[in-house]
Amino acid sequence: MLFLLSGPSGVGKGTVRKALFRKNPHELLYSISATTRSPRRNEVNGRDYFFVSKAEFEKMINDGKMLEYAQYVDQYYGTPNTWIEQQRQQGNDVFMEIEVNGAMQVRSKVPDAILIFLLPPDLMQLRNRLELRGTESDEVINQRLKTARQEILMMTNYDYAVVNDKVDKAVKKVQTIIEAERLKAKRLANSYIRILEG
Amino acid sequence: MLFLLSGPSGVGKGTVRKALFRKNPHELLYSISATTRSPRRNEVNGRDYFFVSKAEFEKMINDGKMLEYAQYVDQYYGTPNTWIEQQRQQGNDVFMEIEVNGAMQVRSKVPDAILIFLLPPDLMQLRNRLELRGTESDEVINQRLKTARQEILMMTNYDYAVVNDKVDKAVKKVQTIIEAERLKAKRLANSYIRILEG
Repeated sequence: MLFLLSGPSGVGKGTVRKALFRKNPHELLYSISATTRSPRRNEVNGRDYFFVSKAEFEKMINDGKMLEYAQYVDQYYGTPNTWIEQQRQQGNDVFMEIEVNGAMQVRSKVPDAILIFLLPPDLMQLRNRLELRGTESDEVINQRLKTARQEILMMTNYDYAVVNDKVDKAVKKVQTIIEAERLKAKRLANSYIRILEG
Repeated sequence: MLFLLSGPSGVGKGTVRKALFRKNPHELLYSISATTRSPRRNEVNGRDYFFVSKAEFEKMINDGKMLEYAQYVDQYYGTPNTWIEQQRQQGNDVFMEIEVNGAMQVRSKVPDAILIFLLPPDLMQLRNRLELRGTESDEVINQRLKTARQEILMMTNYDYAVVNDKVDKAVKKVQTIIEAERLKAKRLANSYIRILEG
């Protein structure tokens, strides 16, 4: 299985992912990205990123070896396909933390990937948005509603949505999703069929 | 949401359902069946069953008011639709425990129902079926494989599969499924949209 944790920038994807892997009772493998930017202090090649040259990265793109990629500030960031494919063929589950655009690229290439959208807690405040009136200007309220609409629109492209109000709670929900996905009847039936057929 | 717990007869659906409702942290409502058989000692109308006459039951069938039904030993057993529809419209989640044939009837009428298949633990023994050779006759092994194939075929019509090796473990898995289903992005997005639209 391939799990993706994504969401609007600043929502805390990295914090939730790191907390999940500190426990990691699910034996998930973390997918390491490739980048063309230089390693920062303490960053290790093959642990934090695969650090590659621009020419290497562009060759991987042209060879169709990138599951997804993006360019920020003249540097490439992306996920090489080969390692993920190898792990999945060996029956291992892979976990990615990824920006929204990257997640949509993966969805189109790996339809059975499981996409989890991390939501900012202030979207929840919409529940009492009428209460906001009086304490916030119309401009602030309208901006919040606009952002909320965009986030809800994004959310509909995902399988699950988790509010990141508290990291521990969010991690627990991600774990629940992983456990439930492992109980999907089709996956279990397939593995039984493989056993029956020897 | 409408959750269905089903599986081959004798697998322990009732035991798992009762243990789930003894905790019931999910505020699920248990769907009570209707039947034409007489109440047994201690059975209460509206708690254990809705006890109705044959004429009443057949009228409900003809009026399309049964979500599913079956006839055993000249008595009808089935699930009236009205109560479930009312509960779901009020935003309540309903839980049914039901035979395999009934589950398939519900699936066809309520496509978004969540179907959980309870598996007998001996299906797991297939994993080491080669070990069985020597201790069991070919006839026993072939019968087991045949039953296993039928159960796996049934399983593919369900959303989730839970092995009933230990009741506590099975209940925990059913709870995980319920929690994960409540994190489905489409459900959350719909409720946010309703809030945004006032």
